[in-house]
Amino acid sequence: MVERPLDHDLGELKKLLLTMAGEVERQLGMAVRAVVEREVALAEQVIAEDSVIDRREMEIDHRIIELIVREKPMARDLRLVMTAGKIAPELERVADNAVDIARQAVALGRVPPLKPFITLPLIADEAVAMVRDAISAFVQGDAKLAREVIARDDKVDGMHEQIFRELLTYMMEDARTIPRALALLLISRSLERIADHGTNISEQVVYLVEAEDIRHRHSEGGAD
Amino acid sequence: MVERPLDHDLGELKKLLLTMAGEVERQLGMAVRAVVEREVALAEQVIAEDSVIDRREMEIDHRIIELIVREKPMARDLRLVMTAGKIAPELERVADNAVDIARQAVALGRVPPLKPFITLPLIADEAVAMVRDAISAFVQGDAKLAREVIARDDKVDGMHEQIFRELLTYMMEDARTIPRALALLLISRSLERIADHGTNISEQVVYLVEAEDIRHRHSEGGAD
Repeated sequence: MVERPLDHDLGELKKLLLTMAGEVERQLGMAVRAVVEREVALAEQVIAEDSVIDRREMEIDHRIIELIVREKPMARDLRLVMTAGKIAPELERVADNAVDIARQAVALGRVPPLKPFITLPLIADEAVAMVRDAISAFVQGDAKLAREVIARDDKVDGMHEQIFRELLTYMMEDARTIPRALALLLISRSLERIADHGTNISEQVVYLVEAEDIRHRHSEGGAD
Repeated sequence: MVERPLDHDLGELKKLLLTMAGEVERQLGMAVRAVVEREVALAEQVIAEDSVIDRREMEIDHRIIELIVREKPMARDLRLVMTAGKIAPELERVADNAVDIARQAVALGRVPPLKPFITLPLIADEAVAMVRDAISAFVQGDAKLAREVIARDDKVDGMHEQIFRELLTYMMEDARTIPRALALLLISRSLERIADHGTNISEQVVYLVEAEDIRHRHSEGGAD
């Protein structure tokens, strides 16, 4: 079977999205490491490099418009392109959350540690994995994997709840812990939001593959 | 001059976006009222009605794909359509923030008030106005108005800072205020994020009108 020019362009678009996902994952990994290892310089690097992700999103936008003009994709091809156009901003928001985490890391790195990290690295690992698997599900057109990612969101919500309650206890017992506990609380919330973006991407994939809009059935947990 | 079928469809798309913006503004207004007037039932209504906004976003997505397939818009028309496709998810995120505010309103409505509201209604008014003006700027193709909206974001950030500092003082002086102060802090943060979405929409408008990508120059304040 001869490859259409459209297939080539769709392949390039997927590659570009994978590149962006890799960059976002790297930013997020650095942000979490900056928190856990108290590395202010690393956190500052994350903040500085956010513009790379922003430019990548614009590049994908431009590529999509070019592709539509040139190849005039129809039906499923057009839906694939539009889905890529929905996924890129989700990734960009993950990167924004990484920046939020990095900002808190800067503040936390300058004061004594509040407590050892136990649940936070776990929620971070799970959130990162959800986004990574969601992107794989898109690239491979794998609705089953996408559904698995969606199912994992409850676990992340549970971990965030646990962190929230624990930090609240710290704050109420000793007022001096409040600024640090607040910073950790916002970090946990950012991670929970990142998992939500993984869920959103996965819902897009299920919708694309199964042509069934499940996107907003799972919107119980708030997200911005 | 004869109106093209495309012009009719673009007009319909703009109308649909205006409808969505009106619905989102209503949700947001109700959420803020639920906080200030301590109306738990109103907050619960906001949470329940979020699905209306979600469905509206999907309707706009479908309409855009239909329009591209049927009318094959080119150049500026295609960019207008793609911009509408970028704005709808921003509005949906404003609605998600309204739900976040409503959730905190439910919690706050069940405990005694912490303090009278002074700055919170002001930041809410400004955030709502920014989103409203951003949508007007899109519908009217008014880059000047869009730039004005972008300039107002610093004011909102300043108000959020002020609220944050004040609530921190409450928390540190009296541990019993912590859960309530935390809820108010998250509400203020949601409002600040809503203003960010107004800014994002405005940047899309400037980009569309002036064909110049300023979108990510103003991304100093974190946003998700």
